[in-house]
Amino acid sequence: MTKLALIRHGQSAWNLENRFTGWWDADLTQQGEAEARASGQMLGALDADFRAGFTSVQTRAIRTLWLALTEMKRVWLPIEKDWHLNERHYGGLTGLDKAETAAKHGEEQVNIWRRSYDVPPPPLERGSTYDLASDPRYRGIDIPDTESLKTTLDRVLPYWEGRIAPVVSAGTDTLIAAHGNSLRALVKHLFEVPDDAITGVEIPTGNPLLIELDAKLKPVSVRYLDAARAQKLPALP
Amino acid sequence: MTKLALIRHGQSAWNLENRFTGWWDADLTQQGEAEARASGQMLGALDADFRAGFTSVQTRAIRTLWLALTEMKRVWLPIEKDWHLNERHYGGLTGLDKAETAAKHGEEQVNIWRRSYDVPPPPLERGSTYDLASDPRYRGIDIPDTESLKTTLDRVLPYWEGRIAPVVSAGTDTLIAAHGNSLRALVKHLFEVPDDAITGVEIPTGNPLLIELDAKLKPVSVRYLDAARAQKLPALP
Repeated sequence: MTKLALIRHGQSAWNLENRFTGWWDADLTQQGEAEARASGQMLGALDADFRAGFTSVQTRAIRTLWLALTEMKRVWLPIEKDWHLNERHYGGLTGLDKAETAAKHGEEQVNIWRRSYDVPPPPLERGSTYDLASDPRYRGIDIPDTESLKTTLDRVLPYWEGRIAPVVSAGTDTLIAAHGNSLRALVKHLFEVPDDAITGVEIPTGNPLLIELDAKLKPVSVRYLDAARAQKLPALP
Repeated sequence: MTKLALIRHGQSAWNLENRFTGWWDADLTQQGEAEARASGQMLGALDADFRAGFTSVQTRAIRTLWLALTEMKRVWLPIEKDWHLNERHYGGLTGLDKAETAAKHGEEQVNIWRRSYDVPPPPLERGSTYDLASDPRYRGIDIPDTESLKTTLDRVLPYWEGRIAPVVSAGTDTLIAAHGNSLRALVKHLFEVPDDAITGVEIPTGNPLLIELDAKLKPVSVRYLDAARAQKLPALP
């Protein structure tokens, strides 16, 4: 059995302000840093041999992985960072807080964007404050201007298949530090969660989801490391 | 011109205790962390586009790079960690402080080991406290049990040629965070420093050495970022 731990980054400055963050590069708060360290302590206490790490190109996920690895005394792990593990792009909602969004679009519409599988928010306007076209980390990359959970999965999945699955298949215990929706997309794939059920799956912050997989990458066990703060687990496929 | 910045890790717990560290994984002190941040601030202020980072598999160099990248707001840089950039292995001196070493081997002999180009200290005894044979980061690697500066260069150079030089040749501004002797080996190669002069070259901590190289990787300029604390510069070849 090979272990795969999914780590959702802890609280960011914009989580705290209740703003749609998406691809905006909000950093961890002190609480977010503490959640990352707590994740690392739980991961370090496992009978596991983590030897590979993957994360997005967003500061909050990268620093979550770094802080966890520091606690695990495994800072030497090879880490691959890739935008395919980024958070879902919230398009024109980026930067708005809940009240602003509701005032602009109506609460019902906002809930559809948040909770539907395949309805993306309106695209981010080119040249807006939150346009990342000139961010050097995305040079040469045709970045999206909005995403649904479905289109998020459409870019997470090829990255999983191409880069992560071969490592896990080879029997390497692996860490992925990423975001609510990129991890949700991965859980949907691994656990074959139906479209209409996946937005009900919510990986908590600071509480890694530990999956054991067989050689065909079928999950054979799943649990949250902090059982006291566990959310509902996806059913084994 | 392509920029290459060599960053020597800041003070470690064992630097502070004056102990031979080598491959032992001593972590940064608070002062060492501050030196790493200061390096990052100076690097971030440059007119440069650093897009690649290399470091050893030793915690003090990795964390130096992480802290510098955090200051530079470039945590998303791809980083490769490899043991070929490790500090020189001090063999049987590992863990001894200056007084213990002098008492055991005589001060003159110790100076020969420190300052000669090609005389390694006695090997580290198998099974000693400082034997790293069971360290998971070195699994499958035939690690040395002692090194001179010459044998350090013998393993740094193929890694430079194979992994770093192609990136720099392609015009990518590059960071290397490493150790006194692995960086010294690199400087010896790039600046064609004679064997008998290289141990006089000392890159200070917290003060990156910035080299500009032409397309053939010949240095065309070199300076310390903090000019006020600069050591003697290697002469351009």
